[in-house]
Amino acid sequence: MIRKPPGLIARRPLTIEWGDCDAAGIVFYPRYFAYFDACTAALFQQALGMKQSAWAAAHGVIGIPMVDTRAKFSTPCTFGDEVVVETQVTAFRRSSFDVTHRLLRQDGALAVEGFETRVWAGRHPDDPARIRGVTIPPEVIAAFG
Amino acid sequence: MIRKPPGLIARRPLTIEWGDCDAAGIVFYPRYFAYFDACTAALFQQALGMKQSAWAAAHGVIGIPMVDTRAKFSTPCTFGDEVVVETQVTAFRRSSFDVTHRLLRQDGALAVEGFETRVWAGRHPDDPARIRGVTIPPEVIAAFG
Amino acid sequence: MIRKPPGLIARRPLTIEWGDCDAAGIVFYPRYFAYFDACTAALFQQALGMKQSAWAAAHGVIGIPMVDTRAKFSTPCTFGDEVVVETQVTAFRRSSFDVTHRLLRQDGALAVEGFETRVWAGRHPDDPARIRGVTIPPEVIAAFG
Amino acid sequence: MIRKPPGLIARRPLTIEWGDCDAAGIVFYPRYFAYFDACTAALFQQALGMKQSAWAAAHGVIGIPMVDTRAKFSTPCTFGDEVVVETQVTAFRRSSFDVTHRLLRQDGALAVEGFETRVWAGRHPDDPARIRGVTIPPEVIAAFG
Repeated sequence: MIRKPPGLIARRPLTIEWGDCDAAGIVFYPRYFAYFDACTAALFQQALGMKQSAWAAAHGVIGIPMVDTRAKFSTPCTFGDEVVVETQVTAFRRSSFDVTHRLLRQDGALAVEGFETRVWAGRHPDDPARIRGVTIPPEVIAAFG
Repeated sequence: MIRKPPGLIARRPLTIEWGDCDAAGIVFYPRYFAYFDACTAALFQQALGMKQSAWAAAHGVIGIPMVDTRAKFSTPCTFGDEVVVETQVTAFRRSSFDVTHRLLRQDGALAVEGFETRVWAGRHPDDPARIRGVTIPPEVIAAFG
Repeated sequence: MIRKPPGLIARRPLTIEWGDCDAAGIVFYPRYFAYFDACTAALFQQALGMKQSAWAAAHGVIGIPMVDTRAKFSTPCTFGDEVVVETQVTAFRRSSFDVTHRLLRQDGALAVEGFETRVWAGRHPDDPARIRGVTIPPEVIAAFG
Repeated sequence: MIRKPPGLIARRPLTIEWGDCDAAGIVFYPRYFAYFDACTAALFQQALGMKQSAWAAAHGVIGIPMVDTRAKFSTPCTFGDEVVVETQVTAFRRSSFDVTHRLLRQDGALAVEGFETRVWAGRHPDDPARIRGVTIPPEVIAAFG
């Protein structure tokens, strides 16, 4: 495993919308996972210099499906809140990697932490309907610096 | 145009979930469109006797994409409400058709009406990346009785 | 009815996210209504110079609930698309008003048009559990100038 | 901590809808968290014999907000799949508790596991705007048998 030191951190501003909130007036927590998915996509686009459809094609993979994800909720957010999500890869393994997200409120308070384990996935050579983890290329790892 | 008389009406019970509601405690209206999309899928599955992936393959089409949809909101619904959606095709044209939905609360009150115009769509023979309306087979129309 | 000439138009850039798309790889259309809801909120925030919770409190109303909405779909959008939504109020009546949205792709093509009728709504004086349309103040109408 | 032996397990059938799936044709994983939230609500309704708004009022609490949740994805699900979610409380502590979900496909395969830690939450006596964990009543714990 390659523990990543201070590498690339993407910072993504977000406005909490009315439709993201539930009847308690705070973000319906599944929406945080949708935010985080978009943040991981943005981090990869920034690191690899192209959109997901392009880098997936360039590397002969189908994408980076999720195998395990978790979120811890410290402080609720409500609609109109302007927040920032800080996203980074925290570990690369042979064919999988970990991503963490820190969602910060405008006052700097940590509202939500997200954790993801994803797979660098290609089609199975014997059965294109199945997918499997493939070795993450060194230049991909290097791009996260 | 073939105006449909009392034809097939699908009745689908739904429970309004916490996560479907907004900060005012009532259903966030885009969710009604998601309900209605599922109701149209269920109506076609009931009429054609198989799931969408099967009837689309059987008829050589890719599906029934939406071109125009509308909803009118009379009475709000809140989480825990047990409602019923009545769905029917109200008109068939050569390659398009109309669907209406009536979402009724437990007391029988009409809460939301939905209207859809969809296309019976196949791939363009000259360019598989494009889709176009194709003639709806008479046996499909007949199945809605 | 006051037909609005060239008044205030809000332009809001949006990135289509993976999670907004369906199994056909294009935006799941209920998500457009969620986009449009956020665009109307942003237009009012821009026109009235404060967030919805603030202007609602300042005017003694509870918000601008939807009574009727429609969308027409011309060209599909897919994930990674950078689009712009142009939003404006097209008519004010005594206690209701119309909003239109034009979602444009990067090549300028009109992909989706949205139409909304909303109510300027306050609590019923005899029963706070009920809401009703109240007269839209002239200074609110003027702010969309 | 009270480890729960074979206690109450709620089994909830679900149809995977088109709109729950992403451009890869499989469930967009944030939707699993929305499913699970509805399953926890259904388990509590079944155990306590009334809807959440009723049992929350009866016990003087505001609900059971999430503090930590996780999901592990083994096998993808696609639209049209008929699945079942088995939900149970696996541990009660003074003012918090754990819930697990097992989402099973029709062939019995375990597709997704979900884990939740929630709080039995009331309003802070000194500041109604804040919430805090309160002691879970023994009769509530007993209801999960």
